[in-house]
Amino acid sequence: MNILVELTCEKIRRPEPATDGGAVGAWVEFAGVVRAEEDGRIVAALEYEAYDTMAERVIRELLEELGARHGCASAHVIHRVGVIPVGETAIWIGVGSGHRQEALALVAEFMDRLKQDVPIWKTRAIPTTQ
Amino acid sequence: MNILVELTCEKIRRPEPATDGGAVGAWVEFAGVVRAEEDGRIVAALEYEAYDTMAERVIRELLEELGARHGCASAHVIHRVGVIPVGETAIWIGVGSGHRQEALALVAEFMDRLKQDVPIWKTRAIPTTQ
Repeated sequence: MNILVELTCEKIRRPEPATDGGAVGAWVEFAGVVRAEEDGRIVAALEYEAYDTMAERVIRELLEELGARHGCASAHVIHRVGVIPVGETAIWIGVGSGHRQEALALVAEFMDRLKQDVPIWKTRAIPTTQ
Repeated sequence: MNILVELTCEKIRRPEPATDGGAVGAWVEFAGVVRAEEDGRIVAALEYEAYDTMAERVIRELLEELGARHGCASAHVIHRVGVIPVGETAIWIGVGSGHRQEALALVAEFMDRLKQDVPIWKTRAIPTTQ
């Protein structure tokens, strides 16, 4: 599986689908977006921090494991860190596969495992100013 | 749920995610792409035809049903008809929801039901020229 992993402090600009070559029949994207409510409080932004080198390595290993299990062609993950305003994307994943079931399964499982295994944390909820 | 349904003869240009307002924490997209192999033959393109008015109505009803069941905020479907070359998108769906499970479930179920219920057919496989 082709794997690409990026951590960035910039606003995520989602890449074009990797569907060249005629083998990919399904492309699934997921974006995790900062919501206005966090633990019952209204917020303006969340701050994320990462243990960068380890986070990239663990994400790559996770994608290798899930790609082998689900038989996907490519996976691209971008995680933003720093202060992320409400409505903007904190995590983006795009997966290409022969058929949709594999890509949907990989995305669902990746997101469950990301929260458990990858050293990226929400460090601060930034309240709205009145 | 906000619903938008389009049939088009043009190449699909995917819209920006509908994640405004702070309530949407998850955005899921699926693109069904024409593959180079169809029923064991190498093809250059597939042709799709639709019973347009009915197809749009059935897609809308299906999204209303699934949106109510899974509690999503918005769904946008674009289905292309006519001749679609290998590597280009035949069907695109984007779904916004509070959390990822709802949007992933809606997309998976929508694609299963689309093939059963919606009057859009592959009418022709166009072979590659030697």
